[in-house]
Amino acid sequence: MNKLEQKILQDGIVLNENVLKVDSFLNHQVDPQLMWEIGKLFVERFEGSRITKILTLESSGIAPAVMAALQLDVPLIFARKRKSLTLKDDLYTESVYSFTKQEVSEVSVSRKFLSAGDRVLIIDDFLANGDAALGMAGIVKQAEAEVVGIGIVIEKTFQPGRGKLIDLGYKVESLARIKSLEGGQVAFAEH
Amino acid sequence: MNKLEQKILQDGIVLNENVLKVDSFLNHQVDPQLMWEIGKLFVERFEGSRITKILTLESSGIAPAVMAALQLDVPLIFARKRKSLTLKDDLYTESVYSFTKQEVSEVSVSRKFLSAGDRVLIIDDFLANGDAALGMAGIVKQAEAEVVGIGIVIEKTFQPGRGKLIDLGYKVESLARIKSLEGGQVAFAEH
Repeated sequence: MNKLEQKILQDGIVLNENVLKVDSFLNHQVDPQLMWEIGKLFVERFEGSRITKILTLESSGIAPAVMAALQLDVPLIFARKRKSLTLKDDLYTESVYSFTKQEVSEVSVSRKFLSAGDRVLIIDDFLANGDAALGMAGIVKQAEAEVVGIGIVIEKTFQPGRGKLIDLGYKVESLARIKSLEGGQVAFAEH
Repeated sequence: MNKLEQKILQDGIVLNENVLKVDSFLNHQVDPQLMWEIGKLFVERFEGSRITKILTLESSGIAPAVMAALQLDVPLIFARKRKSLTLKDDLYTESVYSFTKQEVSEVSVSRKFLSAGDRVLIIDDFLANGDAALGMAGIVKQAEAEVVGIGIVIEKTFQPGRGKLIDLGYKVESLARIKSLEGGQVAFAEH
């Protein structure tokens, strides 16, 4: 069990069978030492991938992703979320449906910061239905850059995200894999 | 001249007399080594302040603030921005006007994460009119905690933010202080 899994058991709050609340250490209050450890784990999982950029989505992906970027010594880009965009000329844009918020956002990255030849590690805080990761992968594709992998802090294996990403040929590495939240209990998948 | 000021001269883009674009290293693409240096500078500037928490605002404050939090070994809280909030029972909330976006957001922090006795360092990416910093200070006040200081990455000294914060008795430390963007040139204030 890694430090992240220990923290989830200790401080995660199971709201219902689908929702784990981790706002005490990941997506509202943030434990910076744990973010450092998470960054380190991502570096290990994607060793040898010759990553040139890390891409994440504001806001909850930024803290873990910047720690991975620091340890890999590559720039981080955080994609911007907006309800709708009028001017898109200088942007790569994808529409992303948020299951939690039940709304569609436009997710965008400035064309200046991604280009052919970039080898991009996508990082996100959660993997559930995969929409955010797919949106970011779409942006990398628009830039004619390569997705070398998708690093997830917490995956819910009982939701279809991983399947969709694997079917498209992406390498997915999740640091904590939760197979069930039934009965108010966190059960991890086998490593 | 510190590394941040060098970076601003090298990569900042002066859009007009009021707007400096730093999306290549701070608020869209992020330079993680520079964020580490910024964190270190904040730790030095607020040495001896017995900080227990750092508070910032999503999204652009997160990367510099988490690096300061890592080096101080204290939790980071990032306040959430929303257009409007219906349920506020468990939140400290302030209205913040964004000059850039010309709209009012509700900025909120869960009551769980700030309480009397906390000694809070507020960190933000820019100081212009001071609205974001004032909103965060209002949240700390609601929690009956203490603002030990306000750390700013880039201050525009020709706008009224610092004056408002100083008048209220806050200690303000800005790592880069820009006195003018006239003629497309960045001019720093004297240290």
